[in-house]
This record gives sequence, structure tokens and C-alpha cells, in this order.
Amino acid sequence: MAELSAATGVPVPTIKYYVREGLVPAGRPTGRNQADYDDGHVRRLKLVRSLSEYGGLSIAVMRDLMQRLDNPEEHDFDLLGAAQKTITEHREASPGTDRDQAEQELAELVARRGWRWEPHHPATRTAIGILASLHEVGRDDMVEVLDSYAAAAELIAETDIRLLGDDLTDRERAVEIVVIGTAVGDTLIAALRRIAQATLARRTYPAERAGQSR
Amino acid sequence: MAELSAATGVPVPTIKYYVREGLVPAGRPTGRNQADYDDGHVRRLKLVRSLSEYGGLSIAVMRDLMQRLDNPEEHDFDLLGAAQKTITEHREASPGTDRDQAEQELAELVARRGWRWEPHHPATRTAIGILASLHEVGRDDMVEVLDSYAAAAELIAETDIRLLGDDLTDRERAVEIVVIGTAVGDTLIAALRRIAQATLARRTYPAERAGQSR
Repeated sequence: MAELSAATGVPVPTIKYYVREGLVPAGRPTGRNQADYDDGHVRRLKLVRSLSEYGGLSIAVMRDLMQRLDNPEEHDFDLLGAAQKTITEHREASPGTDRDQAEQELAELVARRGWRWEPHHPATRTAIGILASLHEVGRDDMVEVLDSYAAAAELIAETDIRLLGDDLTDRERAVEIVVIGTAVGDTLIAALRRIAQATLARRTYPAERAGQSR
Repeated sequence: MAELSAATGVPVPTIKYYVREGLVPAGRPTGRNQADYDDGHVRRLKLVRSLSEYGGLSIAVMRDLMQRLDNPEEHDFDLLGAAQKTITEHREASPGTDRDQAEQELAELVARRGWRWEPHHPATRTAIGILASLHEVGRDDMVEVLDSYAAAAELIAETDIRLLGDDLTDRERAVEIVVIGTAVGDTLIAALRRIAQATLARRTYPAERAGQSR
């Protein structure tokens, strides 16, 4: 275990904790206080470490994901769907006309883009919740530009799928790409959005109009 | 104040708290326990309420923003920049070759897109931090597709600016659009990204390959 720790940079107590929580398989016992670890352990340990650190996943969520990963009956597509859901915010709208309107608007958008309508997907529920709250606060103008945001989101998703590639035989890599790529990608895209906003704002509201100080 | 509460749906104790914290101006006193409130109070109260609820802004951050909003010397462009920074994550990378490489990559990207390079902008620091951590965990492939993510981010920012319009005379509306539009928009775009991912994944990894269960 000391060697495993040296190979991965993960402290021994953390490794013990991950093994106890069922996130990393135990080594093959070779003596009373000895066990063998192989490359599979090294990879798994690195995966768990980065899911927890960069994907913000809890132990319980990772345990469920690792069980699916280790289950040969679990199909690739379902595994990726499960991985994606671990990093999807779930926000429900309270029932009412705003929510009904939001649900219809989203369903129409999904149809216009040729996306698949999955009413129970947490991402669908969250999008409906946000649209409903935008109506509630009177920001209907934001709902009107939904198509532009959806076009940008599709561009992002196309890039995500390109990154993933069409070879899913390495399931640990695929899970890592989906979780880290999506979680970290959200923040990266949010940062790029603000950098672009700052540039475009300066062009749209130039110095003469912004004031004399610059 | 009871009427102000009825007009805005904000409970009286909350209004008192906002006034005490300097977020909403006090009413004009008309008697010992009476004060006059006008439409300006109603709008301000609604703005503070939604910045706090949907923008996730703290009292301290809102106080600073309200002071800028009320300061006629503060130029529109600076006000919007300040509003934008209130909802920008600030994540610094630790010094090292990963960070230097990340900074150069981002500077090159910004140049390619014709964006303005603002090395001290929190969004710039955060983007550098993310790129550095992607290098650190060996996810250089995600850095390679940066141009695609940046193109999508620019599309989003163009929509943001279109929403804002070029009339900034209503400064409270402009602040609300920047803060709520950006904060809520991040979550909305993340949700749309996942809906699009699910559709594209199903196309790319069809049922035959995903397994026999469907």
C-alpha cells in the first residue's frame, strides 16, 4: 500500500478509506500485513481521486458509480448516463401555470432542435425550474432567446462527444471524461462567457458613452 | 411599510433588514411611525430580492453594488463590469509550469478570437486555473478543444448583450439582467448542455452497441 501511495500521490490513510468505502478494490492478500496491488488499482485510485477533487462527487455517489462501472451487465450507454446525472443539478419548479408554461416551452424547443424529450431527466427538470422562475420574476425576455442558448449548448455537447470519441472500451476513461469534462467544463465555459461578455460590452458600450474617465 | 410589503411580497422584517443594511433607501418620514415609499422603493426592493434569491449574492456584495448603482459618477460600463464580477468564480492556479502554459494558451485563444486580454479579470484567472488543473490531471485533450468551447461561449455572450440592449438608461434593469441573466443562465446552459449530450450520446452510441436491454 505504501508503494501504491507513492505511485499515485494519494496518502495511505486516504487509500484505506477508499477501500473501506468500496470505491477501490482491496489488494490480493500475500501475507498478514501485505497485499498485492496492480495497475488496475493505480488507475481506479486516480479516477476516484479526480472525481472527488474535480468533479465534486460525494462518496455515496462515487460508490454507486463504481458499482456500475464494475458491473459487466451495465451497458456503456447507461453507465455514461449515470455518470452524467451525478453532476446534474436537480431543481424542481413548484406546480403552477409558470411551470406548465415552462414545460411546454422546453418541449417545443427540444422538438425544434430534434433533441430527445426525456421529461424525467434531471437536466429537463432543472431547465423547466429555471424557465418557470424566469417567468415568475418577469424575465420573459430571457426565455425568448432560449433558441440561441440551446444552439450554443449543442455546440458544447458536440465537442463533448467528440472528446469522448466512439471507442468506449476503456470505461474508466469514459466515466472520467463525462464527469470531469462536464463538471470542470461548466466552470470553464462560464469563465469564457464572462471574458467574451467583457469584450463585447466594451464594443457595444464604448468609452465616449461610458463616461469621460477612460 | 405594510403597503410596500403588500406591493412587493417582501415581508416587513425583511424590508427593515434591507433598509438597515443600506440596500434599500429609507422612506421619507411623515410621522412618528410613518414613512412614504415611492415606485423607486418598490423597484429597488424587487431588485435586491431577486439578486439575493436568483443571483445568490451576499448582503455585502449587494451593498457594494447598490452604492455603485446610486453613484451618478459611476459609469455604466464600470457598473456592468462590477455586476458581472459579483457572479464570477475566482479560482487561482498555484504557480508552476502548468499555470504558465495555461496562461499562454488562454492568451493565444483570446488573441485568436479577437477578445480583449485582461490578465487580472477574475474570469481570466479562473480559466487559467481550470486549464492548469486539466494539464495536471493529464486531460490535455480538453485543452485542445478550447476553441470550440470558446466559440460556444461567444455565441452565449452575444445573446447576453443582445438581451441587455444598447439603452442603459435604466441602470437597475441593466444590473438585474447582468447578474440574474448570467447566474441563472449558467445553470440553464449547463442543463441544456446535458439534454443535448444525452441526445447526441444516443445517436453516437446506438442501442445495438449499448447492449440488448433496449
